Amino acid sequence: MISKKMEGLVKGSSVIRAMFEEGKALAKKYGKENVFDFSLGNPNVPAPKSVNESIKRIVDEEDSVILHGYMSNAGYEDVRLAIAQSLNKRFGTAFSEKNIIMTVGAAGGLNVALKSILDPQDEVIVFAPYFGEYKNYVSNFDGKLVEVNPNPPTFEPDYKDFESKISAKTKAVIINNPNNPTGIIYKKEWIEKLASILNKKQQELNTCIYLISDEPYRELVFKDVEVPYLTKYYANTIVGYSYSKSLSLPGERIGYLVVPDEADSFEELTAAMGVATRILGFVNAPSLQQKLIKNCLNEKTDIEAYNKNRIKLYEGLKALGFECVEPEGAFYLFMKSPEEDDKEFVKVAKEYNILMVPASSFGVKGYVRIAYCVAYDTIERSLSQFAKLAKRYNL
Amino acid sequence: MISKKMEGLVKGSSVIRAMFEEGKALAKKYGKENVFDFSLGNPNVPAPKSVNESIKRIVDEEDSVILHGYMSNAGYEDVRLAIAQSLNKRFGTAFSEKNIIMTVGAAGGLNVALKSILDPQDEVIVFAPYFGEYKNYVSNFDGKLVEVNPNPPTFEPDYKDFESKISAKTKAVIINNPNNPTGIIYKKEWIEKLASILNKKQQELNTCIYLISDEPYRELVFKDVEVPYLTKYYANTIVGYSYSKSLSLPGERIGYLVVPDEADSFEELTAAMGVATRILGFVNAPSLQQKLIKNCLNEKTDIEAYNKNRIKLYEGLKALGFECVEPEGAFYLFMKSPEEDDKEFVKVAKEYNILMVPASSFGVKGYVRIAYCVAYDTIERSLSQFAKLAKRYNL
Repeated sequence: MISKKMEGLVKGSSVIRAMFEEGKALAKKYGKENVFDFSLGNPNVPAPKSVNESIKRIVDEEDSVILHGYMSNAGYEDVRLAIAQSLNKRFGTAFSEKNIIMTVGAAGGLNVALKSILDPQDEVIVFAPYFGEYKNYVSNFDGKLVEVNPNPPTFEPDYKDFESKISAKTKAVIINNPNNPTGIIYKKEWIEKLASILNKKQQELNTCIYLISDEPYRELVFKDVEVPYLTKYYANTIVGYSYSKSLSLPGERIGYLVVPDEADSFEELTAAMGVATRILGFVNAPSLQQKLIKNCLNEKTDIEAYNKNRIKLYEGLKALGFECVEPEGAFYLFMKSPEEDDKEFVKVAKEYNILMVPASSFGVKGYVRIAYCVAYDTIERSLSQFAKLAKRYNL
Repeated sequence: MISKKMEGLVKGSSVIRAMFEEGKALAKKYGKENVFDFSLGNPNVPAPKSVNESIKRIVDEEDSVILHGYMSNAGYEDVRLAIAQSLNKRFGTAFSEKNIIMTVGAAGGLNVALKSILDPQDEVIVFAPYFGEYKNYVSNFDGKLVEVNPNPPTFEPDYKDFESKISAKTKAVIINNPNNPTGIIYKKEWIEKLASILNKKQQELNTCIYLISDEPYRELVFKDVEVPYLTKYYANTIVGYSYSKSLSLPGERIGYLVVPDEADSFEELTAAMGVATRILGFVNAPSLQQKLIKNCLNEKTDIEAYNKNRIKLYEGLKALGFECVEPEGAFYLFMKSPEEDDKEFVKVAKEYNILMVPASSFGVKGYVRIAYCVAYDTIERSLSQFAKLAKRYNL
């Protein structure tokens, strides 16, 4: 009785989310402390203290009718302006409130962006490995996902393959920076190369190709590497941001889209995003959370906690003989599966109460993603389990 | 550069929302007190005081990582269970947490429900006049909206026309109770008749037809009329609820879907709703608002404030010679346009700084919708402007 599209999706329901549920079940069975659940990107670092203080101040001070009420679909103007000014200060951009559309997290933002631009059969290019939900988001609007081949071990885009896959049907390209699942950062030079290929192709094909940068992990950077601000490198850019990780508010569903003035059809595109926000049923980003963000633009999460995890896990796994991509950002470690079949490896690891996500969920094979946004203690204790796993594979 | 579907939508962008923006512009020009904006269903009654108190207590008492974190896509189990128990107490139902899916308001809920059940070209029946967004929601999933003829002045469903429009393609029927825009309530007898037709047709066609009841106005009832709880009358029911109006939290985007155990493919359907919540980009209903709802299940908005408005406006307009449907619920008054072209009438009213929504937005002609969720004083002062309007039309 459910739709045909959903039938398949329900059956193959997100491996990540299924693991989340499985993790909860295992924890009930073996005790939480004996399960090493690295499956979900749910921040373990609490929101900065000022977040809750700010919430209390807002409900005390603001007019309740306005605070909890409807506003323009794109969000409160004062919030959008404050975000624009904060971006301008950080990145030397020149945004106003017109360039910002408040969204229900980055996931909501990407859906709003894709709804605004995709016609059926339009193509959207992603670089493998990529966040598996992109496939569903594109499919929501009957678009077609086109994958660029993975390029291990650096995972720098395969520019040649990328260029060959751009067609007259290409409407958008999605990158995720810092990257989920690899933990790498798209450097300035990479972005410049992508932009140059896109500009060339746009001219050649006489089309408009939007480069969508999904940036929920922008603030989670552990190396002295700049995460380039896309609008400075390419005109037809849409940036999707979320406070899920930067302020540890994933459940609150608050983020925004940025469209620069230089983007083709700027007025139409941003108007479409407002309409898409409405008709997809978001209506607007949660109002209290919008006001909260305005007060917390300079707040930061405890990046050192993640960094400590990152180093411990990366060094620990390397020492055990596992082959790992060194994470530069986000809170994921991308590890080579010691056997070709990453799903099988994940199954075996589960025998040791270790939960990881097979890279098949991200469009590549032979890797697993380890989300290290867990207690440091969990990482420490997991290493003896990983040691057993290494032994099992004769590493 | 935007999608073809969106091009049309942006051009004809929701008359209601356009008016909201227009109202703000007029208020800037003439002063807020001189503009009578009856266009948007944005509650003017503030949320109960306990709402803000509860928010403060929650952020003080709950673990921040859990409070602001991800949970199952369907929502926190404790919240869902509390809602189920509250419904059981009120309506004699027998729901558990499994029957409840938390959503980003009723708009989010309806999209989740439709995404879960619609295949392209599937038909969804609505009764004119209907909330205009239903058309967009159905179109999001390539479904086809089928309208049952309006039946003024009672707006009881035209059962004969309804039955004639049910086909093998009919996947769902949406009703809105209490009704936006008419303000009428679907009585028990009406629901029984609809259910009986649906049961007959399901058997005849060997199909499954979901009756979706959109109920954001359930608590806003001014007459001694029961708003029947749909699951008691028909098995394949999906109830969409929102706290936007009942607790004056429209900007916070919090509501839920109810599916009874008896619904066809119950397990599959509720699983699909969880997946739809995720892939449409909602991911989950805002987490703090979920916890808030659990604490405020017995709170009520100030229904008397709306009732006072309702009586003043209804009596006032009738006395001026306007023909009105007596509102029984919600906060809308449906008024006959003194000229056939309701859009023209709305334009003329604007000359008197009165903003109303033409019923063309709701799939019928010759009426306007007046949202009386405004200050009582606004209603009082608007009547002299309505008097001028009545004079203009020689009423």
